[in-house]
Amino acid sequence: IVHDYLSNSSILEMAKPGTEFIDVGKKPGNPTPQELINSLLVHLGSQHLNVVRLKGGDPFVFGRGGEELQVLAAQGIPFEVVPGVTAACGVAAFAGIPLTHRDHAQSCLFVTGHLKDNSVDLNWTSLAQPHQTVVIYMGITGLDSIARELQAAGLPGDTPAALIYRATWPQQQIFCTTVHDLPATAVRHHVKPPTLLVIGSVVGLIPPELRPTD
Amino acid sequence: IVHDYLSNSSILEMAKPGTEFIDVGKKPGNPTPQELINSLLVHLGSQHLNVVRLKGGDPFVFGRGGEELQVLAAQGIPFEVVPGVTAACGVAAFAGIPLTHRDHAQSCLFVTGHLKDNSVDLNWTSLAQPHQTVVIYMGITGLDSIARELQAAGLPGDTPAALIYRATWPQQQIFCTTVHDLPATAVRHHVKPPTLLVIGSVVGLIPPELRPTD
Repeated sequence: IVHDYLSNSSILEMAKPGTEFIDVGKKPGNPTPQELINSLLVHLGSQHLNVVRLKGGDPFVFGRGGEELQVLAAQGIPFEVVPGVTAACGVAAFAGIPLTHRDHAQSCLFVTGHLKDNSVDLNWTSLAQPHQTVVIYMGITGLDSIARELQAAGLPGDTPAALIYRATWPQQQIFCTTVHDLPATAVRHHVKPPTLLVIGSVVGLIPPELRPTD
Repeated sequence: IVHDYLSNSSILEMAKPGTEFIDVGKKPGNPTPQELINSLLVHLGSQHLNVVRLKGGDPFVFGRGGEELQVLAAQGIPFEVVPGVTAACGVAAFAGIPLTHRDHAQSCLFVTGHLKDNSVDLNWTSLAQPHQTVVIYMGITGLDSIARELQAAGLPGDTPAALIYRATWPQQQIFCTTVHDLPATAVRHHVKPPTLLVIGSVVGLIPPELRPTD
């Protein structure tokens, strides 16, 4: 089992006795290069009968699962993909935010705030559309520019927004705020990665018992 | 257990003996009104200890789970949400389409082609953005206008697109085509609902063995 930083250890405990575990978690500040993970999967996949690549969330939503599979496919190593619950859907369930709702959001846009070249170069006009829920993965480091650019693109500053730290984990914390106040809220509560950012009027549907006083 | 048309019967078979099943599936042509489902959940929830509302996919992604919960919350009936694998992520896994990929798509937009008032009134400019994967739920009936409007909004007609019938089911069928040829492909293969529409260059990553000759 080749597992990640975001995999839950209680899942690993369900493995058969004798299973070998390899931790390739990309811990902040000490990342395992993706190329090394790719090579490792090819190496293990050509030697062993059963190799499990375990990831938190969904491997195909900002999970680089597609890149890992291309490498395996190129080497002729057979694989099967088991889909996961992507963080946006998981957080929706555990924070009580429906990502779509006939009265609030007719579309749902998932983007990453952490791009290949480390910039935050998003299509702000698409993100600022009304009647839409936007979920930004890994957006916490670029929060200042996200809040500024969204408002510049026409999204009202009082649009509800939530910062969700360690979504779906027992340590999950939800901070409800507005697009305008996102950076200040993050600073005040010392919000760190991994944090998911949800923007849109569905945030207003979070039940009161899950809303901390801000 | 109050279950849907899209729930898999093998899941229902895992229920405890003595469980009562109520089928509220919205079969095409004979839909159960959502208001009736809402009232039924309130009625059952106030009488029974354990009521399960089982849905296919994710209840919060075009699943009207948010509306059902608002009704329960208003009546003070406690509930817990268990997230599901939304059709877009499921189909990604079973059709080999990574929804995001650093070289192909930096964002992923989920929309529904079936709106509250039965029109197809989408934000075509947002949908036509490059480097994005668009997944359209329930888009098959509006396919002509979807293909026409996307191209009018600037999406190249040769952008890869896939029609996926009964995504994640044993009967799953994938039809790979282009945005321009979507309507013709649907007609030629008699594609019916439930069908998911995936548009974007990640469609080109579908492995050859899953691509039927068109």
